[in-house]
Amino acid sequence: MQNYPAPLAKLINELAKLPGVGGKTAQRLAFHILAMPESDALGIAEAIAVAKRELVCCSECGNLTDIEPCHICEDAGRDRSTYCVVESPRDVVVIERMREYKGLYHILNGVIAPMSGVGPEDINLESLIVRLTKNDEAKEVIIATNPNIEGEATAMYIARLIKPAGIKVTRIAHGVPIGGDLEYTDDVTLAKAIEGRREL
Amino acid sequence: MQNYPAPLAKLINELAKLPGVGGKTAQRLAFHILAMPESDALGIAEAIAVAKRELVCCSECGNLTDIEPCHICEDAGRDRSTYCVVESPRDVVVIERMREYKGLYHILNGVIAPMSGVGPEDINLESLIVRLTKNDEAKEVIIATNPNIEGEATAMYIARLIKPAGIKVTRIAHGVPIGGDLEYTDDVTLAKAIEGRREL
Repeated sequence: MQNYPAPLAKLINELAKLPGVGGKTAQRLAFHILAMPESDALGIAEAIAVAKRELVCCSECGNLTDIEPCHICEDAGRDRSTYCVVESPRDVVVIERMREYKGLYHILNGVIAPMSGVGPEDINLESLIVRLTKNDEAKEVIIATNPNIEGEATAMYIARLIKPAGIKVTRIAHGVPIGGDLEYTDDVTLAKAIEGRREL
Repeated sequence: MQNYPAPLAKLINELAKLPGVGGKTAQRLAFHILAMPESDALGIAEAIAVAKRELVCCSECGNLTDIEPCHICEDAGRDRSTYCVVESPRDVVVIERMREYKGLYHILNGVIAPMSGVGPEDINLESLIVRLTKNDEAKEVIIATNPNIEGEATAMYIARLIKPAGIKVTRIAHGVPIGGDLEYTDDVTLAKAIEGRREL
């Protein structure tokens, strides 16, 4: 950071901590912020502080929320017999956008990843068992962790944990994406698609 | 912004005001900020507020600075006979990085752009005349505005303004970039390169 006034160098440094923001982009963002009207620039700073202060993990499901419990856990219109288990609050957004799923969620805020030293006790899993135990209506747990090694391992672990309680545990389907092309589908996905074939 | 808690929706909105940040990127940044340690996230907010509060335009040259006058204007080691006129503080950073130029700067903080309603009185130009008038040592003004229509027009305007005072006005050279390839050079640049040819 040659020759930058200290507050500018500091701002560039801080912005470079964001994902996908390297030194050059951080510079560009910093100069842009300084050229913004004061209220816009302070609006960003304020929004970060407010979001950080007011958003917490829902004590029920682990989702990001500004009310307790979150609006999904509290919504009387949701189907309380089904739980969808996802890795992060972003996955909830994606599934909610679809407007198809009407059940509850449970957000792990992580995955079991022994290589990185993340065990079952480090993710939001125990509270899922508590929720299922307390809820007599609970019938099905859909596991929608990502289709990679950690996501699969986590799914297997949760399934083994819950099945003995007589609750149905399902996994979202893996296969050729709609609009995709067999020719450009990788072998693993194709194998999953064939393995998961259904009668028409 | 379907179903986001208000503080999160607000944060995404604010981040989307940054250049090159669309809705998707703003979402990604927002979730990342919320997953950061509290001190890191507030560090960004604080850096924005501090930079906005402490950085001003140098009353001499117009550069961004936290001291008055800026460290370049104040540096006794700089050659006070030469002024390099640039559009923005970012250009100063680029030229300083080169470590070749030892003169002073004058930052216009804009260019003359009649199509956007920006006239000579809207940029930091009058103060350049004042500086030149006050400085008996002033010998040369190098105009380093960008090589586009507005930049060229601004350069011409400044040249006509200053020349009568007996001060040499020069323009940075335009031509084929070093390491560039004639084959891939656009016609206008090539024409400039030939027009600006020098005897070997």
